[in-house]
Amino acid sequence: MLFLTFYSAFSQRLRDYDIKPGVLIPGQLNAITDVQGVKVGHTTIVEGENIRTGVTAIIPHPGDIFQEKVPAAIYIGNGFGKLAGYSQVEELGNIETPIVLTNTLSVPTACNALITYTLNRNKDVRSVNAVVGETNDGWLNDIRGRHVKEKHVLSAIESATNGPVAEGNVGAGTGTICFGFKGGIGTSSRFLPDDLGAYTVGVLVQTNFGGDLKIDDFNAGEALGKFPFSESIRNQEDGSCMIVVATNAPIGPRNLKRLAKRAMLGLAKTGGIASNGSGDYVIAFSTAEENRIPYNVENPVMEIQELHNDKMSPLFLATIEATEEAILNSLVAAKTTTGRDGHKIEALPIEKIVKLRKNTAR
Amino acid sequence: MLFLTFYSAFSQRLRDYDIKPGVLIPGQLNAITDVQGVKVGHTTIVEGENIRTGVTAIIPHPGDIFQEKVPAAIYIGNGFGKLAGYSQVEELGNIETPIVLTNTLSVPTACNALITYTLNRNKDVRSVNAVVGETNDGWLNDIRGRHVKEKHVLSAIESATNGPVAEGNVGAGTGTICFGFKGGIGTSSRFLPDDLGAYTVGVLVQTNFGGDLKIDDFNAGEALGKFPFSESIRNQEDGSCMIVVATNAPIGPRNLKRLAKRAMLGLAKTGGIASNGSGDYVIAFSTAEENRIPYNVENPVMEIQELHNDKMSPLFLATIEATEEAILNSLVAAKTTTGRDGHKIEALPIEKIVKLRKNTAR
Amino acid sequence: MLFLTFYSAFSQRLRDYDIKPGVLIPGQLNAITDVQGVKVGHTTIVEGENIRTGVTAIIPHPGDIFQEKVPAAIYIGNGFGKLAGYSQVEELGNIETPIVLTNTLSVPTACNALITYTLNRNKDVRSVNAVVGETNDGWLNDIRGRHVKEKHVLSAIESATNGPVAEGNVGAGTGTICFGFKGGIGTSSRFLPDDLGAYTVGVLVQTNFGGDLKIDDFNAGEALGKFPFSESIRNQEDGSCMIVVATNAPIGPRNLKRLAKRAMLGLAKTGGIASNGSGDYVIAFSTAEENRIPYNVENPVMEIQELHNDKMSPLFLATIEATEEAILNSLVAAKTTTGRDGHKIEALPIEKIVKLRKNTAR
Amino acid sequence: MLFLTFYSAFSQRLRDYDIKPGVLIPGQLNAITDVQGVKVGHTTIVEGENIRTGVTAIIPHPGDIFQEKVPAAIYIGNGFGKLAGYSQVEELGNIETPIVLTNTLSVPTACNALITYTLNRNKDVRSVNAVVGETNDGWLNDIRGRHVKEKHVLSAIESATNGPVAEGNVGAGTGTICFGFKGGIGTSSRFLPDDLGAYTVGVLVQTNFGGDLKIDDFNAGEALGKFPFSESIRNQEDGSCMIVVATNAPIGPRNLKRLAKRAMLGLAKTGGIASNGSGDYVIAFSTAEENRIPYNVENPVMEIQELHNDKMSPLFLATIEATEEAILNSLVAAKTTTGRDGHKIEALPIEKIVKLRKNTAR
Repeated sequence: MLFLTFYSAFSQRLRDYDIKPGVLIPGQLNAITDVQGVKVGHTTIVEGENIRTGVTAIIPHPGDIFQEKVPAAIYIGNGFGKLAGYSQVEELGNIETPIVLTNTLSVPTACNALITYTLNRNKDVRSVNAVVGETNDGWLNDIRGRHVKEKHVLSAIESATNGPVAEGNVGAGTGTICFGFKGGIGTSSRFLPDDLGAYTVGVLVQTNFGGDLKIDDFNAGEALGKFPFSESIRNQEDGSCMIVVATNAPIGPRNLKRLAKRAMLGLAKTGGIASNGSGDYVIAFSTAEENRIPYNVENPVMEIQELHNDKMSPLFLATIEATEEAILNSLVAAKTTTGRDGHKIEALPIEKIVKLRKNTAR
Repeated sequence: MLFLTFYSAFSQRLRDYDIKPGVLIPGQLNAITDVQGVKVGHTTIVEGENIRTGVTAIIPHPGDIFQEKVPAAIYIGNGFGKLAGYSQVEELGNIETPIVLTNTLSVPTACNALITYTLNRNKDVRSVNAVVGETNDGWLNDIRGRHVKEKHVLSAIESATNGPVAEGNVGAGTGTICFGFKGGIGTSSRFLPDDLGAYTVGVLVQTNFGGDLKIDDFNAGEALGKFPFSESIRNQEDGSCMIVVATNAPIGPRNLKRLAKRAMLGLAKTGGIASNGSGDYVIAFSTAEENRIPYNVENPVMEIQELHNDKMSPLFLATIEATEEAILNSLVAAKTTTGRDGHKIEALPIEKIVKLRKNTAR
Repeated sequence: MLFLTFYSAFSQRLRDYDIKPGVLIPGQLNAITDVQGVKVGHTTIVEGENIRTGVTAIIPHPGDIFQEKVPAAIYIGNGFGKLAGYSQVEELGNIETPIVLTNTLSVPTACNALITYTLNRNKDVRSVNAVVGETNDGWLNDIRGRHVKEKHVLSAIESATNGPVAEGNVGAGTGTICFGFKGGIGTSSRFLPDDLGAYTVGVLVQTNFGGDLKIDDFNAGEALGKFPFSESIRNQEDGSCMIVVATNAPIGPRNLKRLAKRAMLGLAKTGGIASNGSGDYVIAFSTAEENRIPYNVENPVMEIQELHNDKMSPLFLATIEATEEAILNSLVAAKTTTGRDGHKIEALPIEKIVKLRKNTAR
Repeated sequence: MLFLTFYSAFSQRLRDYDIKPGVLIPGQLNAITDVQGVKVGHTTIVEGENIRTGVTAIIPHPGDIFQEKVPAAIYIGNGFGKLAGYSQVEELGNIETPIVLTNTLSVPTACNALITYTLNRNKDVRSVNAVVGETNDGWLNDIRGRHVKEKHVLSAIESATNGPVAEGNVGAGTGTICFGFKGGIGTSSRFLPDDLGAYTVGVLVQTNFGGDLKIDDFNAGEALGKFPFSESIRNQEDGSCMIVVATNAPIGPRNLKRLAKRAMLGLAKTGGIASNGSGDYVIAFSTAEENRIPYNVENPVMEIQELHNDKMSPLFLATIEATEEAILNSLVAAKTTTGRDGHKIEALPIEKIVKLRKNTAR
């Protein structure tokens, strides 16, 4: 069993092919971890012929998330999904656990793990709002076997680190499919110039959806003959995308929800159509220290900071660009995979695409 | 261990004391099961000193719910709760599993049970939207112990029956508290006269909330000196209410959501305030046979029936009245309970209240 | 013409009959104007046989509302109405004009007046989000004649004052009907004790709806034989309620929306059912000075105050109680009115009700 | 005065330049009027140096819209706008007037016109939900002068026709700006193959927004040095887009809202970012005759048709593609315009762009 694969070398990324979507500049790592304090951990579960799944955990800050909650919002792009935790985030405007991504049928187990995690750290707590997202890896993975266990989730949380983030067939992206190719985990970030606030926006995605693949300025899906409702792809349009957006900008739940909403515009730029069967959810949070929400109320009135609405647009653009690039990164990083019942999904033929792009007249 | 308590005798109900909220007439059983085909099952878990919890299952129709989904909607009165299944019901407008109620920290286990239940009955299914509601019984119950197991959930589903519904300290209501008294499961229904459609609305509640108790035309909380933010009740305002509304009226998700919204008006009439800490959710579904949604699409265009908007108001009133009475029934039925760490919660002193009501001048 | 009726004497109120809903204490005036800085103005339009309508304006603070916007939220109880301004308040979380109430078909004219008002005070402004609510006074008023003019709206704004608020047949309440009796404008407030924050919540309503009238602990509608879908009242269940909630508590749009939502629970306690045809909207704003939103951004990051979620419940209760009492005040104050085509609507027979209440056994 | 410009010749369109976004096939006219029965009318108001505005009306079917309402939904992409009619459409699921587009400050006048229009055709009606959208043409137009009058609105409605739709500087698009170039009205459609339902989706847009212009597979904004937050375009990112989506598919308000939501994905593909200051609204309706909602209820239970959720994805793709192309059509059609205070906005240099696209290496 191989549930703790750590990638010794990181995969290729879109920018290695000199394709740079958007006009803003990425952060240093071009990853969600460019937002200071954010950590990511993966548990990759590859076992036998049929098990290709895993868990990815995103931890908003180094402290105790339950004791110091972060302002957060969840936007539902399309709700054919099983994300846990929505209504409390919406009502209270915060997140109180690490964010966990996994496969569709393992959401309850991941919730149980987050409850265990929180109860263990907080003696008298009797209510925990676990936030768990998912996509369905049932084509490559024996999802009905529910092979994700609590220990896998706890391991993803415990192994989370700052620094570069493994992408592709890793963690919750181990068995996913995107635009008919192997999808997975991807990440990207944008850093705003000083006069736009000097804030960072980082995005992490779990890609498992379909549509009309566009790579920046190249209609890749059409060039490859793999587009929605065509012979080659029919019935593969469905699927989901989980998107996590982190920022250090001091914004509350209302503007975080607006930010989250923009991530779907980034998904659209890659050709995603948010098909009927998709569970597209965007979880956005702010790491701004002034705005942490204490579990124990000492002062009923909190002094917080709030970016003026008029200053939000650059953050919107940053979110769109980082989402687009994170999705494309997931495709570039992912490797051809054979899984359940011998199902095989090819990696994105990025070398071929780069050539086609260069040689196709417009 | 005592996890399958079946009540040989049913408890007292509000109407036994000649108190009859509202102007409409209840159905034959004055229960959610007056809506034809609806079944209710309980698993009551009372074990040792500290375990006082359980599961209640509501089954919309006798067929396979996954294969023949019912139009449904969920309204969030206050979202400080962990209800599972919200976003898919909202997006697709239907429910595909039995509805399960339990305690807060057992939601994931109940979801797992519903997945097991559905996978077992549907060989190739790899996606299930479990609908599970909860309230927090952590005062009387060792909720941190997570004593609800999958078997308890499956047992509640399997034991579900038509006919009278056990109320009070039963199933998911075993350990709940309402207005400072012992709460629990309650149910009620209304039957509309022919010229208003002759439809039935049935409501089932799991009561665990606080406020300013009003019993029809009597300000009981004030008379008993137990009202919000008073010395006697301070810090007991919080808590939640799960409400399930069933109707045989042919209405789709939009009007079901409107119906669900009215249930909160019924809660308000009992004095509920939907406090900050409450998870108040209303799940509404229609049993109208013409409007079942098949899992396997044979005809892409479904012929359905939809009640005209202008005919909804009587159903709104029915929902309000049945919710009010279901809540009061839960209080009347519930028995004094001692649980975790010796915590004791008294039953509603209904005999005393009836006397007070009679003798208090207005 | 009589469009500037100022009541020399104020009408009777519910408490004059020793009926005191709830457990919290009203502010000094028991009016929305107990929230410091809030002003209310009415233009009452009674002309000839057929015109019975008007305008009520609520002004959140003494400064320029456009230059110093207030945090705000709008909750839609039932959306069969024509309220203007919803989406921008929802998106930006603030209000930038006085709030105006009038009749259904005069909303556009009132919007035009608010635009005029704002453009006149702000030279370079080219976008204004007018917030205008309405109910339909078309039974007593020749609503199709659209007799409200811009001048009436401007006059209501200009005449707005602190201090006691005229109730009943005044301003936007001139031609409205409630529970089959003459409705109108009503107001009430609650003041929280020090240990609950010492905040004030004030409510103003324009009542024009139906249902099952309850006056505190008395089922008045049933006692008078005037209840929903009964012979005497059939077809009068429809109608709307506009509710404005003001508070000086430092809360932002998310918690203001939660507050607004609670006002519908207050409406429910009076017997309102939010019928299909009702346009029930609640507009809530905070007057907390620290949280004003400047039109001209000097500092992109605003330092604001936010009450902790855990401290919201007393404000919820205050909103419920003040809404309930404001509605009942509107009924107690309103006078029998004859209007369009000789239609006559009786005032609430409060003296009779008080006697009935005293003499009806429970 | 020139308020009734009818274009004798129609403008160029994107496909004239052999640029064909997407994989689906347009309808015969590549216009919203490909949806049978839909009519469009414009009133263009160009007067003196400073008035550049107008009105566009979309009429869902040839009958009386108030007497036979159409199922409809409105999705709010970003709510910094003044659209009228939202809440009633959301609550009741239908539209009862023609849809009118105009400038921001003329929404109330357009509402008044729709009320006039409806009252004139319906003797006893006392409640009308006018649906009016807008964008802000205040840079080219003296918007503060509120030059749109009721007659302009009525004229747009009365002149509405089937057949080709004038695009560019016409009607509500007369004074709008998009991506720093002259925007305006645009339209497009998609027709689904038989095995995907053979339905038509038509889109009409009023473009007045900013972002990072992309023309199918060409990053035009970057190539032209006109991209968000760059020197050349700074402060022009803001602005709005009104989108109207029509289809003959038999879908109700829930699925229409999902359809409407997809239009924002089409906007994203053109580079729109839904900036803070944008009022991006999508109004979607179905013309399916079986699903009309009668004003006068003869049979309380309507027999309607509803496309199965599983068949929605092709309609989603159609909406995305038609929205993208409609926006680009608006840019291609629009002409350089000088307006208020000598402000001049250039037309999109489409010939230059076509050359650049051909000659820019990827």
